[in-house]
Amino acid sequence: MRLAGRAAAGTRTDERLLGIDFGGTKMAVGVADGTGRLLAHRRIATHAERGAPQALDRALELAATLVAEVGGPLVAAGVASPGVVRPDGIDLAPNVPGWERLRLADAVSAALGVARVAVDNDLNAAALAELRLGALRDADPGLVVGIGTGVAAAVTVGGRVLAGHRGAAGEIGYAVAGGPWPGTMLELDFSGRALDRLADELGVAGHAAGLAAAAELPGVARDALTARVDELARHLVTCCLLLDPQRVVLVGGVAGSALIRRLLADRLAEVLPNRPDVVLSRFADDAALLGAVTLAREAVPAPR
Amino acid sequence: MRLAGRAAAGTRTDERLLGIDFGGTKMAVGVADGTGRLLAHRRIATHAERGAPQALDRALELAATLVAEVGGPLVAAGVASPGVVRPDGIDLAPNVPGWERLRLADAVSAALGVARVAVDNDLNAAALAELRLGALRDADPGLVVGIGTGVAAAVTVGGRVLAGHRGAAGEIGYAVAGGPWPGTMLELDFSGRALDRLADELGVAGHAAGLAAAAELPGVARDALTARVDELARHLVTCCLLLDPQRVVLVGGVAGSALIRRLLADRLAEVLPNRPDVVLSRFADDAALLGAVTLAREAVPAPR
Repeated sequence: MRLAGRAAAGTRTDERLLGIDFGGTKMAVGVADGTGRLLAHRRIATHAERGAPQALDRALELAATLVAEVGGPLVAAGVASPGVVRPDGIDLAPNVPGWERLRLADAVSAALGVARVAVDNDLNAAALAELRLGALRDADPGLVVGIGTGVAAAVTVGGRVLAGHRGAAGEIGYAVAGGPWPGTMLELDFSGRALDRLADELGVAGHAAGLAAAAELPGVARDALTARVDELARHLVTCCLLLDPQRVVLVGGVAGSALIRRLLADRLAEVLPNRPDVVLSRFADDAALLGAVTLAREAVPAPR
Repeated sequence: MRLAGRAAAGTRTDERLLGIDFGGTKMAVGVADGTGRLLAHRRIATHAERGAPQALDRALELAATLVAEVGGPLVAAGVASPGVVRPDGIDLAPNVPGWERLRLADAVSAALGVARVAVDNDLNAAALAELRLGALRDADPGLVVGIGTGVAAAVTVGGRVLAGHRGAAGEIGYAVAGGPWPGTMLELDFSGRALDRLADELGVAGHAAGLAAAAELPGVARDALTARVDELARHLVTCCLLLDPQRVVLVGGVAGSALIRRLLADRLAEVLPNRPDVVLSRFADDAALLGAVTLAREAVPAPR
């Protein structure tokens, strides 16, 4: 399938683009010039347990601050959110209570006084950043796997991010993991939150990161982590068989663990007849933020 | 994603198209007019255990007979085969010994004296038939699941069948099923062959079909079949979550069992937040054959 080129740039360098990435743990806000280069960005805690409205308010406040600091005309905003973003709410985003009732595009438009607001799922935004700027520029099809607070994926085909029929492509966190049917949800088995809980159960300090550190040496922590990685690997094997991707890009906090990446890549290599490249996103935690900025950039039509 | 239209027809009605579908159990050969309408078709046993060359020879002989019977100029041939078809051989087609060394396009071209020969994976061919003529004409994305001798899938996006990076998209038969890593291959757990073996183990006569019949009533056969369906369902749930398909089309002999289709659809409905339509192909056993004819038709360029 032919790779589509980068969308025609409708923005001038002196114009400004806003990107917001709402995560279950952290929110990132950035202001870029018209080419998509970040001029300022900051990260704040979501405090998901305090509910969605306060998180949205603080993110919009930070956005307004950064836009004012950077100066220049704001021509578009892009927003990345967990779940399936509809105009009147968000589906499948259980990690922040109340998030499902937010009208994100309207809220951003009203708070920042910007008419063009593009909103997409956070993993889709990360995949767009990989397509335009990162590891999927020269790979087709592409599979992006996000392991942060939750677990999700995104698919790129022919230079586009696959939306799916209801905009819900990639929501593999709902996959059936574990023993006899219906087992457990994959996201309850392998995600930042799930590994935090596993660390607690094992009495390992430092949450998921502490668990990954403890698992560097053989022992209980390694065995427990490996069993969880196996369950994720089982589903990623199915995803890779279905798509035959050229490259798999891992993003998100948990993917930052070299041990987890290695365990996962080894499992895929063991059973896949065609092994894709498995790489870590070079955007660290910023893939979805850069994707949000790219969404904003591509929301501006080329001939103005 | 926009649905691409049907490929421009380069054939006249009085011209002839040949389609061959090589299956692990049966082979189908058909001759169609230039619009793709079948004028004659016949089905013969593969006798896989006797090896690939004899199967290929008999299929080509039947093709020559049908082409002669129907008359008219043969302008293109389309071939559907299990596995990943390369010019010099076929990968991932373990059900017919020796199949991996066949040069299918060359053999068909030489035997039938036709220059235009298009070859693709059998499930991809079936998906092409569904896209152009069947259940996926108005659905995007689409997922085709073939349960015949083996188990495999195909993905349609934006009016095209997804090939994958190495032409191997859809080979979910290699998925990791069963207990602790690496479990077993899905195809060894759920496929026509696997259900034949299960019927033998349970002492049920009539192979997979007999097992499906016996499982109509609660009991050992039902429990055993349900456990196998659960394993397939687990992987199809992951596929559906990844793609968010509008419609899932089941093809192949085992999919002909209403009970198996119902058990499978129930499982998907239980856990998927977005439920796709699950339908049986209306082409019965002919989806891949019609796909092969469509491959032939689309191999003829429009302006001649």
